[in-house]
Amino acid sequence: MEKPSRREFVLGATAAAAAPLVGGAVNARAKGPARKLGVAICGLGNLSEHQIAPALQKTEHCRLSGLITDSPEKARQWQSKYGIPAANVFSYDTMDRLAHNKDIDIIYIVTPNAQHADQTLKAAKAGKHVICEKPMEVSVEKCQQMIDACKAAKVKLAVAYRCRFEPNNLECSRIVRDRELGQLRYLDAAFGINIGAPGQWRLKRELSGGGALVDVGIYALQATRYLTGEEPVMVSAIETKTDPVKFAEVDETMTWQARFPSGVLATCMASYNLPTVTRFRGIAERGWFELDPAFLYDGNHGRRSDGKEIAQPSGDQFAAEMDDFASCILEERQSIISGEEGMRDVRIMAAIYESARTGRAVTL
Amino acid sequence: MEKPSRREFVLGATAAAAAPLVGGAVNARAKGPARKLGVAICGLGNLSEHQIAPALQKTEHCRLSGLITDSPEKARQWQSKYGIPAANVFSYDTMDRLAHNKDIDIIYIVTPNAQHADQTLKAAKAGKHVICEKPMEVSVEKCQQMIDACKAAKVKLAVAYRCRFEPNNLECSRIVRDRELGQLRYLDAAFGINIGAPGQWRLKRELSGGGALVDVGIYALQATRYLTGEEPVMVSAIETKTDPVKFAEVDETMTWQARFPSGVLATCMASYNLPTVTRFRGIAERGWFELDPAFLYDGNHGRRSDGKEIAQPSGDQFAAEMDDFASCILEERQSIISGEEGMRDVRIMAAIYESARTGRAVTL
Repeated sequence: MEKPSRREFVLGATAAAAAPLVGGAVNARAKGPARKLGVAICGLGNLSEHQIAPALQKTEHCRLSGLITDSPEKARQWQSKYGIPAANVFSYDTMDRLAHNKDIDIIYIVTPNAQHADQTLKAAKAGKHVICEKPMEVSVEKCQQMIDACKAAKVKLAVAYRCRFEPNNLECSRIVRDRELGQLRYLDAAFGINIGAPGQWRLKRELSGGGALVDVGIYALQATRYLTGEEPVMVSAIETKTDPVKFAEVDETMTWQARFPSGVLATCMASYNLPTVTRFRGIAERGWFELDPAFLYDGNHGRRSDGKEIAQPSGDQFAAEMDDFASCILEERQSIISGEEGMRDVRIMAAIYESARTGRAVTL
Repeated sequence: MEKPSRREFVLGATAAAAAPLVGGAVNARAKGPARKLGVAICGLGNLSEHQIAPALQKTEHCRLSGLITDSPEKARQWQSKYGIPAANVFSYDTMDRLAHNKDIDIIYIVTPNAQHADQTLKAAKAGKHVICEKPMEVSVEKCQQMIDACKAAKVKLAVAYRCRFEPNNLECSRIVRDRELGQLRYLDAAFGINIGAPGQWRLKRELSGGGALVDVGIYALQATRYLTGEEPVMVSAIETKTDPVKFAEVDETMTWQARFPSGVLATCMASYNLPTVTRFRGIAERGWFELDPAFLYDGNHGRRSDGKEIAQPSGDQFAAEMDDFASCILEERQSIISGEEGMRDVRIMAAIYESARTGRAVTL
């Protein structure tokens, strides 16, 4: 399927919101255009509780209809809060029974990275569409399994890149695409946070597959790709570890640089050991643009060298992302955040780790 | 000789300005404390005309007393403008005669990079102190020759790093040194310009030894060194060339990353093909600081994550640099911008080029 341009996507999304939903998906047809697709959240951690569930109360084309968790206590709390019937609550081991549930169309996977493939395979086998938190998985091979499984089951697969629906990030992509400041030449992008307490799953390689790079660096990597509209052809990376106890299993801070086919160079940074910094700046022939902050849930804004502000309301990126995925299902469109797109980042991050380990630039 | 800390330097310079000049240098003793050291500018290009000569009208301890040029027309114009007698005008070929001139103490070399060693050797042989524009030379070997020649002749050698005397750059160094925002963890620094017309000496490898990296990237490199107070232990670099005709002989745009012993990582960019960008940002344990612009002749300013402005008057950096060099001569102090300091950057830049060429990180 041909990937739509971002311009087409933006126009398409607007059109979808205004027009009745007349897509060809079986579920949509079965219950008519007004039906909202049912979403079961798989994994009821912080992100699900504070971002995704509230966002699903604001969506036009989705509703929170199910839960997948191994915590009976959390299940009870969520059922009570969101009015979810016991029939729509599953554990990780009973996901095969999803096949018989007509109230759930989409599984939103929000579990540790190394569980994504397993749960995606189960969801696909049950005939459910899947949107999966990023990083997609811990290896290219696992990503490919997810893509293959969803293809075989004829369900859609997306990776939850919320910034692809953030108006200020979209505006910066537009500035580059329309060459409003001329040809882009250089980008720098950074995402650093203080990861907090030791012991959490993100610091365990078996569950996370990596540290700062795969968790927050992926935003900077994505930004270099959606801002340029190109794929990097070479990356090189350096890692540093100032706390080898806390970060015994995963990367604490990484920098990498990348070259793109048009000649754009990018320098990027990801850290688990900094005060929060989320920013990028692009420098083009005739000026620059920047977002700082760039990747927050809300309040992203920036400026341009010509004095113009870039400061649209960030909106609820999770709600926009879910509505787009539902529209893709209903209209049988390929998502711009497809499994293939998620796998590209995993492949590039593997190259970044390889470069940091070997001290050699990796050609992609 | 032990290198003074930047704090000692700042205090020292203030004290020197207040106290009579009672240093032990022969020239200073010969004419007493009130005497200003005579400076001959070697190379009368744009930088000399618009920055260095005007700065020498503002110095406390120096005065413009001589010219070295191969252009009789420029010599006449400058002589008339600055009242310089014919006896103090030399060509590159007659620099040996400087030995007999008592009116010139210092030669300020402002010629193409690949001529610095030759002219420094001539100046040293004539018993003159030398301050040389950056980059110091086109190879470590040439830098070593300059150091050896000045040592043998018992004259001082400095490399004209004006930003080492720029109050906002000094303030950022202080923030790091005093750990005012905690331990520094990450730096990014960039200097890009549009180099302008083809055909100029900066684009000819034989004269420049390199392109954007050695000409403007050196500011970003220096910044990572004076901000951290450390020497990089590893660098890796990627180069891009979007105009292979104009930049046939030298680098157009380079990015590099560096690791420092304390664990600080830096990402840097240098370009000859961008609108002017001169900036750096440091991120420490508890916050960040940035200068943007960072490396201009005037108007450098920035801010901190705690809302404080960094906006002292930039001052005339060339005048401060020359007054410090004169004080070093008069007080027999080592300059913080010594030949050894200049050679360090040339060595690191050679490693950056090597990495860009080989695709391998270079350990220093």
